[in-house]
Amino acid sequence: MSSSRKAVVLVSGGLDSVTALAMAQEEGFECHALSVDYGQRHRSELDSAKRVAEAAGASIKVLPLDLRTIGGSALTDDIDVPVEGTTGIPVTYVPARNTIMLSLALAYAEVLGANDIFIGVNAVDYSGYPDCRPEFIEAYQQMARLATKAGVEGAKMTIHTPLIDLTKAEIIRQGTELGVDYSLTVSCYQADEEGRACGVCDSCRIRKDGFSTAQVPDPTRYR
Amino acid sequence: MSSSRKAVVLVSGGLDSVTALAMAQEEGFECHALSVDYGQRHRSELDSAKRVAEAAGASIKVLPLDLRTIGGSALTDDIDVPVEGTTGIPVTYVPARNTIMLSLALAYAEVLGANDIFIGVNAVDYSGYPDCRPEFIEAYQQMARLATKAGVEGAKMTIHTPLIDLTKAEIIRQGTELGVDYSLTVSCYQADEEGRACGVCDSCRIRKDGFSTAQVPDPTRYR
Repeated sequence: MSSSRKAVVLVSGGLDSVTALAMAQEEGFECHALSVDYGQRHRSELDSAKRVAEAAGASIKVLPLDLRTIGGSALTDDIDVPVEGTTGIPVTYVPARNTIMLSLALAYAEVLGANDIFIGVNAVDYSGYPDCRPEFIEAYQQMARLATKAGVEGAKMTIHTPLIDLTKAEIIRQGTELGVDYSLTVSCYQADEEGRACGVCDSCRIRKDGFSTAQVPDPTRYR
Repeated sequence: MSSSRKAVVLVSGGLDSVTALAMAQEEGFECHALSVDYGQRHRSELDSAKRVAEAAGASIKVLPLDLRTIGGSALTDDIDVPVEGTTGIPVTYVPARNTIMLSLALAYAEVLGANDIFIGVNAVDYSGYPDCRPEFIEAYQQMARLATKAGVEGAKMTIHTPLIDLTKAEIIRQGTELGVDYSLTVSCYQADEEGRACGVCDSCRIRKDGFSTAQVPDPTRYR
């Protein structure tokens, strides 16, 4: 694949999206990171996204979109983040989050002339989020191919989900092989201003177990 | 239909979306207008959206989303708005605009517990925008049904496009019958701060012809 093929990569600053970025680069794409500042509580995620893109040598755009106007999630509202294991769709679910992120990535792809979008969704540890399922991604891609100028002209927009079938441990193992520095990433739903993790929320627990199962030293900074 | 069924209506402040709002109300929906401030040049559109929702007795949320970060359109960039008739997809096309708008509406619908979204797209006078075509809307609806919590639980999100097959004259005639006050609306791509239209851009020309063909007096304020 020519190194001039452009891709938009949704980068949150968490473990998954950083691994997706490394995988996109490994496939030879010229990567343009897009990060959305949707008013998330864990502001350090955004600093992390910038550090991660910089470390990878990718350009990054941070798009402000204040979803607090809409509300409905523990990540943007004054709802407590759960610290116990939960079942079903958790309160940390942000309504239509991936639909919105992918739509912004689609707009950016169209401006760049890119026909490839990477998103680090995962159907294994997805904690019950409807917009992390393969059937959602498939339907999104179908829609995206009809939504754009390039699509009308025959281009086929592709939504890449390289992590979708991987366990957290497999993601960490593959990312580590690609040289990802996970110490730059923040996964915690309630990280402090310096990006230090709580160690007890759902996201922290899944991440910790991942490093442990992968037998990779956990570089996460806990407070 | 019970009057308690909620719908999200995308309202831009232009002629089409206002008519879609009136139609949704006529169908008995409790309407929640959503307007997106995407950095459009024609800022008076947003004032118009607020006046229109107020006149209709609908709640309105204005969500700021600065698409100028992404660029790519005469409506958000420093590209001249064309004043001659154009063919193909015009420079006023905002990349993935309707995909983004519908995604924000989807999030809002999920928060409200609404399963209905209205958008005033039109495939007749659509000026070549890919995201105004019926096949795009159909694909979006398919995706939306898989994207949300409510969808997982069996609810069927419906994207309503009551104007899709109407000519501009038919839209104006039906809206007038429903009591829409078109003097509150702004369609011009380069309206001035008081919302007065240029009378020469694509959008003005289509609107003017619509009133003339509908034989309805044109209440547009030209400068």
